Amino acid sequence: MVLLRDDERLDDLFTDQTMKIIQSECVFSYSIDAVLLARFASVPLKRGKIIDLCTGNGVIPLMLSRASSVPITGVEIQERLYDMAKRSVTLNQKEAQIHMIHDDLKNMPKQIGNDKFDLVTVNPPYFQTNSQDHLNKNDHLTIARHELFVNLEEVIETTSKLVKSGGKVAIVHRPNRLVDLLTLMRFYKLEPKRIQFVYPKKGKEANILLVEAIRDGRPDVKLLDPLYVFNSDGSYTEELRQLVF
Amino acid sequence: MVLLRDDERLDDLFTDQTMKIIQSECVFSYSIDAVLLARFASVPLKRGKIIDLCTGNGVIPLMLSRASSVPITGVEIQERLYDMAKRSVTLNQKEAQIHMIHDDLKNMPKQIGNDKFDLVTVNPPYFQTNSQDHLNKNDHLTIARHELFVNLEEVIETTSKLVKSGGKVAIVHRPNRLVDLLTLMRFYKLEPKRIQFVYPKKGKEANILLVEAIRDGRPDVKLLDPLYVFNSDGSYTEELRQLVF
Repeated sequence: MVLLRDDERLDDLFTDQTMKIIQSECVFSYSIDAVLLARFASVPLKRGKIIDLCTGNGVIPLMLSRASSVPITGVEIQERLYDMAKRSVTLNQKEAQIHMIHDDLKNMPKQIGNDKFDLVTVNPPYFQTNSQDHLNKNDHLTIARHELFVNLEEVIETTSKLVKSGGKVAIVHRPNRLVDLLTLMRFYKLEPKRIQFVYPKKGKEANILLVEAIRDGRPDVKLLDPLYVFNSDGSYTEELRQLVF
Repeated sequence: MVLLRDDERLDDLFTDQTMKIIQSECVFSYSIDAVLLARFASVPLKRGKIIDLCTGNGVIPLMLSRASSVPITGVEIQERLYDMAKRSVTLNQKEAQIHMIHDDLKNMPKQIGNDKFDLVTVNPPYFQTNSQDHLNKNDHLTIARHELFVNLEEVIETTSKLVKSGGKVAIVHRPNRLVDLLTLMRFYKLEPKRIQFVYPKKGKEANILLVEAIRDGRPDVKLLDPLYVFNSDGSYTEELRQLVF
């Protein structure tokens, strides 16, 4: 039996209750961003290998493991989150498919090697930060959300090394970093091919950005139709329900 | 009285019939792209100067002249189109405000000088081309649509020279060139600040891209809510009617 710590709870990963995930409000619980990334990425179903960086409590590997049978690696720098992810893997009896690593993602290319993966997914920390600001609050949520231990360029450089030529890198970020993200991707030979913006509701600015790039791909990008999260009455849109629930 | 050539017709520029524009199916008639760009750009109303490159039959200067009282320059490389634009300016009695130049846009920084404009607008040729393909069909429409005389990098470099520091560059293009456009803009110190995608209808990929950048601006871009052109029944959407008609 999996042990839950005091602050933890067990949530359903899908509405059909086929899978569970360990969450904690004060440490880490996954966001809609990770779910949308798992749905957006072009997932190899039977052949190849997947790695998920900044995996947190392992939500993306767990979600992908329902659709795909290929080996999935998750990498998390925070020991507590890694521990939660590992217990969720055990709980769902996915030890044969999902391998969790407790390490800095920047060490992965040396440890695992270059050109190894068919798909790299990553939901990195979003907020640029002066690390001085956070010297006294290196708590779990701050590390997951702010560029304290890794910045966007390091994330992109690492994914570019890990992915095979012709393989895919799927990332979720905030739209205000679009130009940074696309220029870094091209610089590191990850050519953006599919982009989708997610809008909280009609008439608002986008607040989630999904990009999938192909290593050494030909320049030519498709803008998928936008996704709206809420209807004007505050209820979830039908398109979101179909994706997420 | 303005002379119309055989293939030309006089169209209303706005539904209130306040302004007219000379068009020709076989030479040039403006597209929705140009209209959307004129509506999208942040237009200086009383102070400053505007230049519109690849002005074609002058649709953007004419549209902007109704809202703004600042001097507007239009530049067109094709003599026939320049001539149409000039006659439309006369027809609308806008000679005091709109100045048309028949020249290659690449010559403008030398002729007019650097850092001169508060807003640069441009609806450039969209299609990359091997100029060999078009040696025998240098007709008006081909030149307007294909990168025969100017490519995207030359367009961006020129706009970057013409605009003042803190001034704006607004461009319309195809979404599949998004990565090229954003990386070129940043390289030439035009920081993208506002982006809007236009979709033919719900569920389709975007087919028009609008970007406004600020010369020497701080990195941070807003994704405006998407614009849909058609309803599912093929009629124009209300949002498009309000913008265009």
